[in-house]
Amino acid sequence: MDRALLNALFDEAVAKAQPELAVTRFLPAQPKGRTLVIGAGKASAQMAAALEKAWPGPIEGLVVTRYGYGQACERIEIVEAAHPVPDAAGLAAAKRIVDMVAGLSADDLVIALISGGGSSLLPAPADGLSFEDEQEINRQLLASGAPIGVMNLVRNQFSTIKGGRLAQAAYPAKVVTLVVSDVPGDDPALVASGPTLPLKGTRADARRFVELYRLDLPAAAIKLLASDENLAPQPDEAVFARNTSATIASAALSLEAAAALARQRGVESAILSDAIEGEAREVARVHAALAKEVAVRNRPFNKPVILLSGGETTVTLRGKGRGGRNGEFLLSLAIELDGVAGVTALAADTDGIDGSEDNAGAFVDGTSASRMRAAGIDPLAYLANNDAYTAFEAIGDLFVTGPTGTNVNDFRAILIR
Amino acid sequence: MDRALLNALFDEAVAKAQPELAVTRFLPAQPKGRTLVIGAGKASAQMAAALEKAWPGPIEGLVVTRYGYGQACERIEIVEAAHPVPDAAGLAAAKRIVDMVAGLSADDLVIALISGGGSSLLPAPADGLSFEDEQEINRQLLASGAPIGVMNLVRNQFSTIKGGRLAQAAYPAKVVTLVVSDVPGDDPALVASGPTLPLKGTRADARRFVELYRLDLPAAAIKLLASDENLAPQPDEAVFARNTSATIASAALSLEAAAALARQRGVESAILSDAIEGEAREVARVHAALAKEVAVRNRPFNKPVILLSGGETTVTLRGKGRGGRNGEFLLSLAIELDGVAGVTALAADTDGIDGSEDNAGAFVDGTSASRMRAAGIDPLAYLANNDAYTAFEAIGDLFVTGPTGTNVNDFRAILIR
Repeated sequence: MDRALLNALFDEAVAKAQPELAVTRFLPAQPKGRTLVIGAGKASAQMAAALEKAWPGPIEGLVVTRYGYGQACERIEIVEAAHPVPDAAGLAAAKRIVDMVAGLSADDLVIALISGGGSSLLPAPADGLSFEDEQEINRQLLASGAPIGVMNLVRNQFSTIKGGRLAQAAYPAKVVTLVVSDVPGDDPALVASGPTLPLKGTRADARRFVELYRLDLPAAAIKLLASDENLAPQPDEAVFARNTSATIASAALSLEAAAALARQRGVESAILSDAIEGEAREVARVHAALAKEVAVRNRPFNKPVILLSGGETTVTLRGKGRGGRNGEFLLSLAIELDGVAGVTALAADTDGIDGSEDNAGAFVDGTSASRMRAAGIDPLAYLANNDAYTAFEAIGDLFVTGPTGTNVNDFRAILIR
Repeated sequence: MDRALLNALFDEAVAKAQPELAVTRFLPAQPKGRTLVIGAGKASAQMAAALEKAWPGPIEGLVVTRYGYGQACERIEIVEAAHPVPDAAGLAAAKRIVDMVAGLSADDLVIALISGGGSSLLPAPADGLSFEDEQEINRQLLASGAPIGVMNLVRNQFSTIKGGRLAQAAYPAKVVTLVVSDVPGDDPALVASGPTLPLKGTRADARRFVELYRLDLPAAAIKLLASDENLAPQPDEAVFARNTSATIASAALSLEAAAALARQRGVESAILSDAIEGEAREVARVHAALAKEVAVRNRPFNKPVILLSGGETTVTLRGKGRGGRNGEFLLSLAIELDGVAGVTALAADTDGIDGSEDNAGAFVDGTSASRMRAAGIDPLAYLANNDAYTAFEAIGDLFVTGPTGTNVNDFRAILIR
């Protein structure tokens, strides 16, 4: 029964993240003039398909998504391009989008469909920079450990589209931005480098961060950044005055939906974080410690309670087994919860596939480890070999859903009674 | 001011864990007959010194502690022995303790001073087993991943003192057990293999666990376990009917004391767990995610709040830098909290020395990483080199207390306003 509840929470989380449903909840009012749809990201073609189906008036536009992520649309053109390393298809699409929004009037509406991955799908290096320069800047930023806000501020100095410049190109048309978020905290401006949203921070800040984080930028980038003349100015506030934006799907919204359903079913939840990162087996140990604190001492949350968390853990491969990051998390959790009564857990990838097997995740409780041992599986040895899939398969506790059609990263739910 | 508050919470946690104070809070009533003190563990000599100072009547006894952990006592004899690998001194002391409690009457009182490490300080292998056998059993158990309750049940089958057998030897004298706990959940029976407390589980359970956890026990141990005749029976309930026990100091009690002080000062706390284990830098990432959830979304706890946790993290050495596990936790935390406003953290070893340097820990806030960079320190590189001490020294944020005279593992406090 507890498994059925956790399964229902997962389904609710996934349903909340379906672009089809999410887009229709956030439809803007029809404009007097034209309605133009633009966008970029891994979920953006799905968003476009949903939007043109639901839109009551004339609609047209161009949306870029990753190769293989296209959707059949009748009125909005879908272009596929390369991710995470940009290619010529993305560059051409970015130029067409900028041209498309130029010359719109104040009566026109631009709907921007933005989702994770959109940054590399809309390459638009400033004059004097190459693709390679843009990629090198990105590499430097990713290796610096800088928070995403800092990365965006620096990166966006070198683009003619990111950091609100696409909204500037569309001005005076009103721009409504709908975001499927993959960033911690769901700040829409941080998704896909925020082409339609104001950038937080100045060029002087960007220069300071380049120095502070000791970024070894390409020569062309250093030259551009040193001289204001070579770069387009950042958009001013007037551009954004009438514009609106909404995060229509995200890990946080999905966790909140799961929590709401759990409450309907009579169990409170605690959302720990929508953005937990770290080595999966270690993240599991902290989750287990917290679950045991609740189980043994009824704190820091009162039982019964469901600990919900999202994010994206990682696995450092040491062995040759089967399974994804959720499996690895769960096997470590099973070891830590061995013999603990009253705890049931589900962890799964919201896209329905954890790693490269056929399962989304698995269930764990205080009997999982002993049932594995009874089946001839030593949980520690299987964890050492990154072979969680086989361990959970042996006890029949895999959680299989098939592809869900959306992705807001990991979903973890631990029920303590 | 926030640092001063966190410092005060650390001091309170440490004060609560001082054996001197703790023992005097739990003094039993004087018996009609003799008062005999026995005990074993790293904190037990300190407990004995405090007890004989506070005890109003005649008192005598024998307590074993680790080499170098002795304390000057006048009436209670202190013996030092080897830990974690037992030696002849421990064996001799264990025999003397058993002899000492034999022949007591129902009017007599035995006070058992039990603390972490006491298991190896009181070796008492059953007839037919050697020291080496006892050690090999322990090694097998530690490598099995079995929870501590299972380890204790199996280990105690092979001892003439553990698992309540010392209380049986003292019967019909009343035994009052005072425990300084180093085990998650603070079950007194799990500290030092519970020589004076009832064992949970039967010999049949122990046999089943040996099989389930695929323990490769020494031949002599297998022979003993197979035949009830060769082993002393487990004590029955009558032995423990009048006995009492209390955990007088532990990580949980210290965290609770810190939480109580914080509340007096107007800030609520959430005790996440007293027993968090795992790779320090990864444990930090989960703490950071939780702190950010509170900072950004005011959940799962309302601001202002202090997240408290204890336990003992580990560090996998990859570099050659300086610093202990709390420093490693903190440097990772500083990287994750880079630029986050309103968060101040302290992590420190409650024994006052984090690793082998002169600091107990350090302070972290959202400016730590940028102040390090300004001082020429790349936080990621220093973390990669396990060099947290140098990084925090460079910005003057080390937390130095000197040895505290007690130890309830790590103390972590993260204040979010």
